[in-house]
This record gives sequence, C-alpha cells and structure tokens, in this order.
Amino acid sequence: MTTSNNGQPDTAHHSLGEHPLLASLDDASGLRDLTHQQLEDTAAEIRDVLCNLLATRTAHFASNLGVVELCLALHCEFDFRSDRLIWDTGHQVYPHKLITGRYHDFASIRTRGGLMGYPNPAESVYDLFMTGHAGCSVSTAVGLRSGDAIQQQTNRKSVAVIGDGAFPSGIVFEALNNAGELRDDLTIVLNDNKMSICPRVGAVANYLDRLRSNPFYTGLKHEVVRLLEHVPMFGDPTERLLAQMKEGVKAGLLGGMLFEELNIRYVGPIDGHDIALVRKYLAMARETPGPVLLHVVTEKGHGYKPAAEDPVFFHTPPAFEDDDGTAITRKSEGLPPFTLHAREAISNLMSKDERTTVITAAMCQGNKLEPVREQFPKRFFDVGICESHAVAFAAGQCKTGLRPIVDIYSTFLQRSYDQIFQEVALQDLPVIFMLDRAGLTGPDGPTHHGLFDIGYMRIFPNMVCMAPGYATELSEMLSFATQHDHPSSIRYPKASALQLERVPEPIQLGKSETIREGEDGTIVAFGAMLEHALEAAELLAGELNITVVNARFVKPIDEQMVHDSLQDGRFVVTVEEGAKAGGFGSAFIESAVEQNLDTRGIRVLALPDEFIEHGDRMDLLATHGLGPAQIADACRSAVASNAS
Amino acid sequence: MTTSNNGQPDTAHHSLGEHPLLASLDDASGLRDLTHQQLEDTAAEIRDVLCNLLATRTAHFASNLGVVELCLALHCEFDFRSDRLIWDTGHQVYPHKLITGRYHDFASIRTRGGLMGYPNPAESVYDLFMTGHAGCSVSTAVGLRSGDAIQQQTNRKSVAVIGDGAFPSGIVFEALNNAGELRDDLTIVLNDNKMSICPRVGAVANYLDRLRSNPFYTGLKHEVVRLLEHVPMFGDPTERLLAQMKEGVKAGLLGGMLFEELNIRYVGPIDGHDIALVRKYLAMARETPGPVLLHVVTEKGHGYKPAAEDPVFFHTPPAFEDDDGTAITRKSEGLPPFTLHAREAISNLMSKDERTTVITAAMCQGNKLEPVREQFPKRFFDVGICESHAVAFAAGQCKTGLRPIVDIYSTFLQRSYDQIFQEVALQDLPVIFMLDRAGLTGPDGPTHHGLFDIGYMRIFPNMVCMAPGYATELSEMLSFATQHDHPSSIRYPKASALQLERVPEPIQLGKSETIREGEDGTIVAFGAMLEHALEAAELLAGELNITVVNARFVKPIDEQMVHDSLQDGRFVVTVEEGAKAGGFGSAFIESAVEQNLDTRGIRVLALPDEFIEHGDRMDLLATHGLGPAQIADACRSAVASNAS
Repeated sequence: MTTSNNGQPDTAHHSLGEHPLLASLDDASGLRDLTHQQLEDTAAEIRDVLCNLLATRTAHFASNLGVVELCLALHCEFDFRSDRLIWDTGHQVYPHKLITGRYHDFASIRTRGGLMGYPNPAESVYDLFMTGHAGCSVSTAVGLRSGDAIQQQTNRKSVAVIGDGAFPSGIVFEALNNAGELRDDLTIVLNDNKMSICPRVGAVANYLDRLRSNPFYTGLKHEVVRLLEHVPMFGDPTERLLAQMKEGVKAGLLGGMLFEELNIRYVGPIDGHDIALVRKYLAMARETPGPVLLHVVTEKGHGYKPAAEDPVFFHTPPAFEDDDGTAITRKSEGLPPFTLHAREAISNLMSKDERTTVITAAMCQGNKLEPVREQFPKRFFDVGICESHAVAFAAGQCKTGLRPIVDIYSTFLQRSYDQIFQEVALQDLPVIFMLDRAGLTGPDGPTHHGLFDIGYMRIFPNMVCMAPGYATELSEMLSFATQHDHPSSIRYPKASALQLERVPEPIQLGKSETIREGEDGTIVAFGAMLEHALEAAELLAGELNITVVNARFVKPIDEQMVHDSLQDGRFVVTVEEGAKAGGFGSAFIESAVEQNLDTRGIRVLALPDEFIEHGDRMDLLATHGLGPAQIADACRSAVASNAS
Repeated sequence: MTTSNNGQPDTAHHSLGEHPLLASLDDASGLRDLTHQQLEDTAAEIRDVLCNLLATRTAHFASNLGVVELCLALHCEFDFRSDRLIWDTGHQVYPHKLITGRYHDFASIRTRGGLMGYPNPAESVYDLFMTGHAGCSVSTAVGLRSGDAIQQQTNRKSVAVIGDGAFPSGIVFEALNNAGELRDDLTIVLNDNKMSICPRVGAVANYLDRLRSNPFYTGLKHEVVRLLEHVPMFGDPTERLLAQMKEGVKAGLLGGMLFEELNIRYVGPIDGHDIALVRKYLAMARETPGPVLLHVVTEKGHGYKPAAEDPVFFHTPPAFEDDDGTAITRKSEGLPPFTLHAREAISNLMSKDERTTVITAAMCQGNKLEPVREQFPKRFFDVGICESHAVAFAAGQCKTGLRPIVDIYSTFLQRSYDQIFQEVALQDLPVIFMLDRAGLTGPDGPTHHGLFDIGYMRIFPNMVCMAPGYATELSEMLSFATQHDHPSSIRYPKASALQLERVPEPIQLGKSETIREGEDGTIVAFGAMLEHALEAAELLAGELNITVVNARFVKPIDEQMVHDSLQDGRFVVTVEEGAKAGGFGSAFIESAVEQNLDTRGIRVLALPDEFIEHGDRMDLLATHGLGPAQIADACRSAVASNAS
C-alpha cells in the first residue's frame, strides 16, 4: 500500500456536525454501557454524520443508512476486538467505523490519505479483511472460526454480515455447504434489504421475498406452533413418515428450508431496525451451537426519505446538498466517460445486430446500461453478482450463434477467470468482454482498481485484447469484435474519454495507429493513457520530436510497430494504466526480444508491484509516474541514457 | 490445438473385442430403433469395451461404468444433433462417445492424435464444449437454452448432466439461481453416485443422502399421497397456513425443497440403471415447462465388481488386466513424482509445526494426500470441488495465526483467482499455495494442463512464486514459505522429480542457484525443466561450456543473476513448462530491460500461445521445443546469432 505524499488527507475536513455520543466513544466497547435510548440516539447521530458527509462527496450511502441499528446491536452483543466480524463486500461499513474509534477522522473518508470507504485492517483492529468484492464473508468467517477452534480459542465467536445482493454468489453456497458439514459455531446475518445495487434478480431473491411473508415475521408464529401440536396421529406403518411430515410442516411454515437442508439453523426474518429485537436474536444465535443464519430485514436508505425511496440512485450518489430532504445533484465536470461511449456503442450495435446480447453481473447502474436494458429487455441479462455464471452463460448463448457482450468491471471479472479459460478461450467462442473500470478507479481503492486484466487476459490463447485510446474508437473496436470470430476484450478506465478530431483508422487485428510522427523517439500508449502520451509529446515540443502510437492491441501486439519504433536506436516509452508485471510493456519487450531487437532504449511506465491506495485518479497516476510530465521526463531520461 | 506429427494416433490400437450393436451404430439416432433388450445388450457391450480399454491404459473408469444406462436413455429421448447436451466435467463421456460414431476409433482414446478423454467439439457434433473442470454445465445449458429461445429455436431442448461431486461448486448454485428466475425449459440430471473423486463432503452431500431415503425412491410415494389427501381441515383464520402446510408436507416428504425453493422442479430420486425408468422420467422432464432437476441414483463402477467396491481407486486406475474380475496393478516406472515429495514435505511440516493446516478441493487422491488426512484429521480440510471457498477459508484460518497450505492443481486454482487476489494477496496473508500439475499433464489434455499459473500468480503484489528444480528442494521451499510472512506459491508438474546428488543451497528470497558453471552461455531453468537444461548442457559438452541456473523464483526474480548471466554478451536460454506470454521468460526480460541490459542474447523457450493437445508429456515437451535436444539447439542458435 502506498502512503500519501505527506501522510495527511489531502482534502480539507468538512465539519460533519456535533455528535456528543459518537465523540465520546473510544471504541465499540463503550456501547454496552449505554441505555436503550442512548443507543437510539447514537443511531440518530450516525445518520446525521452520513447525511452531512454525503453533502460533500460521492460515497456509499443507502446501504450504510440501512445497517445502523444492526451495526449497533452487533457491537453490543459481541466484542469484536477478539470476536471476528466480516462485513461482506464492505461498502456498508461506515456506521461500524464511526463507533470503532474513527469518528474524529471520519470526514476524511474516501479521500487520499484518509479513511478507506471499505474495511481496512491498517485502520483498526475491528477491521479484519480489506474487502470490496462480494460474497467471501461466509468463507472467511468459517475459516476464522476453524482457525480459532484449532487453537482452542473457542470463546472467540465469528460473525459474517452479508446482503441479499451478494448472497447468491457461488462462493456463499460453497461456504454454506462447508459450514453445514463442519458445524462449527458461526453467526451469519443475512441483511435483506430487497436490493442489491441493481434491482435484485434470481430465484434466491424470490425465495427471500417468500420468507419475508412467513408467520415468524408476521407474528403468527404462535398460531403455527399451536397447529403443529394438533396434527393428528395416524396408526402404523407410517410413523417415520409422520415424523418427517411434522418436520416438513415446521420448516415449511417457519421458513428457511433452503438453509435448514444444509444444516444451517435458520432464524427470522426479524425487523433489522429494532435494536432490542436484533440484540435478542443475535444473543440467541451467539449461544446456539453450530452455524446459524439470522435473517434480518432492513430498509436501504432507512431514515433518509429520498434514499429509502430510490435506493439504486442512492447506492453511491453524487455529492448533494441535504436541503430539507430534497436531493440536488451537482453537475459532473469534463467530457463524457468511456462508460457512456460504451453504452452508446452497445446500444447502436444491438439495434443493428439481432445476434447481440448483453450480460451484466449486478452492475447495470455502474455500467450505465439501464437504458439498454429498457430498450432491449429480451436480450439483456443481469444475472446478479454471479460473474462465474455470467461468463459460462454467455458461452452457452454464443454457441447457439448469438454474440454476447459480457460487461463487467475489470477487477470483478477475476471472479470468472476459470470460465474465461475453459468456457470461452478454450472453445474459441466469440464472446466479447467489455472491461469497465480497467485502471485506477479513484476513491474506492485497491479492491476496485482494475490493474491486472492486461496480464491475466493476454495469457490465454485465442483471446484478443484491445483498449481504445479515445472516444470514437470504442465503437469501432466493438464493431471489430463482432466481426472477429474469436474471443475478444476491450478495456477502458473510469475516466473521461479523450476526444480527438480524427476519424479512427479502421481497426485491424494487431495493428496500432500512429497519432503523431516525430523522429526522436516514440511513446507507445495502450488505451486511455494515449491522452497523457500526447500531452507529454506537447510538453516536449521544441525539445524532442516525438512519435505517439496508439497501440490498440496488447494481443496480438503490433510486431511491425515494435520493430519500427526501435529502429536506429530510438527510444520507446510504453505507457499503460495497469500493473507492470506481465502487462503491456512486458508484451512489447517480449515481441522485441522475439525479434532480436535491442531493447536498451525501452522504458516501461506502468503501475508498480504494490496495491495502490484510494484517491483521485489523476493524482494517483502522477504519483506513480503516469502523468504527462512524468512521461515527458521518461523520454528525456531515455534520450540521455541512449546518448551516454 | 496442435495436431499430432503425423495425424495418426501414436499408440498401436489394441483390439477392444467384438461388439456388433455398437459397431452397427452410425450415430445415436439408431438407438431409437432398438428394442429394450437390444438397449440392454448395448449397455453390456459398452461395459465390455470399457473393461478391455482399461486393461491397456489409465483412464476414467468407474464414473463411465456408472452412466451407461443413463447415457443410452438420454440419447433415446433426445436428439443431441439438435438438442443440447452438456456432460459436466466430461470425464464420464466414454459411453456417449461409443454411441455417437466413435466406436471404431475408441481404442485411440487418451493417446496422442486419438480421441480425447473429454468432450471435444472437433470430434463430433454431439460434443458442444471441451470441458474438464467441474460445475459449469448448468450455466452453459441455461445459456444454450436462452440463445435458442432468442432465436426461436424452442424445439431444441437443453440437458445438463452433473455428478454429485461437482454439484456443490458455487457456479452451479449461481446457475440454478438464474435458471429459477428465467424459467426457460431445461433438464438438469443430477447423477448421484454418492462419490466424487474423493469421498464426497459437505452439507449438500448429506442432503442428497437424505433425499435418497425418501419415499419417492423407496416406493412409498402412494402412501404419502394417500396421507396428504387425509390431512384434516381446521377452521379459519388459518386457511393460508393450511395451504402452506400442505405444500410443506408434500415438499418435505417428496424431497427436493432445496431445489423447489429456487423454482426448480425436483423429480426423483430414481434408479439410474433402469433404462426404461430413466427414459420415462427424462420424457416427463423434457415435456415439463421450466427447469427440472431429475435426481438419478447410479452406482459408480456399476457392472464391474472391483470398481463398484472401490470407486476411489477406480476413478482413474492404472492399466490392469481384467482377470475374472480381479484387478492387477502394474508397477509404475521411474523415480517418485513431485507430488509424493510434496506429500512428504507437508507431512513432515505438519508433524513439526502445529500451525500448519492443509486444504484441498476434492483432490486428495490426485494430490496423494490421503495419508496426511489420516495422520492429521483435525488439520486437514477437503472442502469438495469448491476452490473459491477453499482459498477464502484458508485466508480466514491464516488470519487467526495458522499457516494453511492450499494444495490445488494449477489449472483448477484458476477457479479461485479472485480470492487469491482479495482474500490473500491484498491482505498480505502468508497462505501457501502448492500448485500440483503445473505443466503438461499428459493424456488429460488442455483442460488439465497447468500452463498459465506463472503469469497469473506473479501479477499480484505480495505474492512469492517458486518452483523446485529437483526433489529435495521442494521441502526446502515449503519450509521457506512457512518462515516467510507473506503469500507464496510453489509449482511443480505431474512428473518424476529429478534427484540431484547435492545439498540444496538454503532458499533465500529471490535467489537462484547455479548448478553448473560454464563460460559460453547460460540456461536458466524455472522448475522441473532444470532436468532438461542439465541434459542439454551435457549434450553440448565439448562444444559449448554452459552454465545452468536453477531459477527457483520467478517472483521476485533474481536480478543479480539476470545481470550476471547477460554480461559480456553471453547468451541466455530461459526454459519453463508454461505459457510463454507473461511467463518466466517474460519476467526475465522485464528485469533485463529494467536494468537496461542488452537482451539480444536471450532466447525464451516456453509453450506457445495455443492450447496444447493431450499426449505423453515428454513427447509434447519435445514437440514444443522443450526437450533436451531442442534446448541444446537453442543454445547453438543463440551462439551463432551472437557471432553474426
């Protein structure tokens, strides 16, 4: 993890208001001394902080409002300095941070050098894992419990809190399968707010809806038990059947068969905004042997009316002014981002080509694909947070002659790595991967930066890997991909797209495009770094005359371009927004060595071999040598070194 | 896919006996003209072929014996020239191959240039996906059905056949979740033989055991229905409750609540060796709208007594003589494989270090870890075919202070790629990955070759990546890993381990070991290729005097070694058993470029950018330039090129 330049948050701390209870808590242990009313007041203070924070910057919002009471109840019933708590995904961790000694630093959240927007073990003993990807909490909690058990630390309890959006992830099922066998003590809190980031989908979601209407929740539990007592007895030979029947009735009526069948004790659903009730059931779960799933119903955005009414918008809303409950969106600056160009390209393609389908994994908001979903509902598939399935499903569609586009963030696509290998690359199927957020994503930090895809995608045979350097190129690449009868991928960052006054040269497999010519040396940019490459060339004007190449492809790489750019001892600076190991620069020098060229004029600029902290993208790029000035400096240094 | 040298299978075809029915089938459509008795006779012929084949070579056996009747019934009730059939994993596809036009070529199976041991679209229209990894069949079948539906091909049915071992894979749950929502027609056949490769584990397994004993299977179904008719009615206000109760009873008694809760119609269990019965239920499933799961109970090894009694051994037994039902194991040739050295190293470590645990994903047989499991049952965890969970679970254990060893095949570890990223590397936890089968695996082919791990592991910050060059080094590396407080990985192929008469130099982070010295140039071998490197040096003796370096680490790479080996214009040939793109050679030249060294003397020998077919490992290595003679030739060519 890099540290900030000066160790200080680089954003001025806004005041988040007066909160006497939060201000007085050194850590969560103080909660247990509070009265019920004081806990309610603490909840109100937390909501005030969240609303005030959201007035200043983009942050996860509705989900945090939804877990305020649950969070307080958890910290009252467990001591997570020794007990183990994993918040799945981790975007709902703000209330947890506010009551575990981080209230006074809270205004720095999601700014460089400040608190992370996700759990961070470097911040607090209360945070065990730095997370951001969904679904792994149950597995890690099972592992934590297993490790403690082996070391005779059986007094340490393990708790996983997982939302209904993350719940259908395959790894959760794998973890339940294992937990049900190991039967170690474990509390799994299913935080059911009827929402993932996108409206939730899938049979599990429908199942949770049915559970919500069961008598346990609606207060008819006693009635059920009374009825069960009166189920009449028949004579033999059906004793066994009757026992089964009674169990069946109980489970069917009390709900949770899906979990009970896996040896997970199911309790709930209960109202997640009733602190006393949640405490009561948490205490029960804590003392129950074996794994328990406590189904807690919460309202996303609870306590802030606009967020409760539109939790999709308020998942990560832009900064707004809290003006008597009315949200005012500030205008975003700059040119349209790549994501919007991607949407337009997809939308145009779907209008023209009936074979095209789109598959997302619960990110149609982040990918800005909602209009595409509305326009083409029968060819749009949001499979939920199930990336593995998304890719194998796309492969199935592709095999029937369709041309599926899998639109998933670079870092989340790692969750389907084996399906990219087996179901797509090995079959040589023309599935098109669109990797959004391929680069530094800003305030979300290391779990969301998409820095590894260049290396992990180009490894596989048959795969074509592209990145657009500027806006109009994206649709050309997509169009090329639909004509190319093999798998392909297009990566682009969370950033405004450079607009160049030029008609893109037609996309040809493995061919780069030269944007400007100069005789002193070459900057080869892969993807959006083209903008900084061109700016660097401008900065050097009069000093050095630089060729700037828009690489377009990392696989297959343009071998002729590699060859030509290294002629006559000229230097080459490669630039990419991705990890250095195995990345574009690596592919460039692989080609150079293969061609037996002198590589001593090559400088590879890429992100270093470390996890990059959260912060402003431009700021982080500059820190790691990828700003225009640093690229220009690399050119100067290459010239000096060649001359020596 | 490479083709064989001469296009012919390179193993003499053994006679597999006389099989008039199989010999007369052009493809599976002929089955529908057969009488029931003729189908039974075909089943007997298939078993005869399988037993005769197994007398000649290692192959998947018990699982194929188990699905003979199921396979025949499937091809009778569907026409898989247009309908869609996916055999999950694919190792049970032999009967399917025998009745889909491949009987006459069958003796070539698993030999180079011959039939694959897994489905292969290049062989037959009846094979849709080349598979080998578990769990993706339901996803691809859902995708196939979705694609056909979009293109108004609703007459094309989709069927996935999945074993109970693969069933708990997370992606299956993701697929069921999606299928239950889409509600497209789909037949999922759960082939329940109570076995995966290892004795099966997990709560789902226990659940299937309970289902097996339900009345549907034991013939008590009528009794249940009669009882249900007699459930007495109570007065209001409990009408809704009663309806629920009746459904609850039905589902509880008839089984399958786990699936019914996900909107998957559950039918079964039925006897999978009764062709007529299986046909009847397949026909029913085919005509039922929406997704249907048909639970079929089979016996692994059915029809061959030793295999039915010991299905673990007979999953992929060594070649044997079928002598009146008695199996005779032939002795294996050569030195002990790396896998055995790994077991010994793990076993020794666990005796010494109480913190050590072992986690496998249903591969304790392949990894030869059964004795370790027996010796340390409380610190040994087989989580089933759930690699994602395995890694996150290990991270949880690690966080409590344990030192988990995750022992998973290189190619299967791809299934936990995102957990390696988030749960291990990002947290910088000292989980130890042991990557067995890291290299060419021989007759299993491209789904099982482990060729991508060098590139995909070294991308992640904090990760240390090692490979032993010879036998005694493996335990040293494992010992080093336990002392190193960061994630690490050790890769080794399915091959005999070179035994060198030397005490390994102590393992130091990022330090290579020079095995022999010579002044003309250097071969740098990563891992088991050291053996061929040393042989190449011997071949060159008298002609060239070669240094041979055992690289040990690809990450961090030994920069001093890179520097020194390239001094004075000497050549370097790097050798690795992995994909070239992003591999060891790539890391070597990355370091050379970083150090501004002249790379023109470097030759990178690795596997090419294509999926490598099945065949003998040594043979495949030689074909792709990694035999000792080819390495020697590369040295000669490097010298010649340097001289010119």
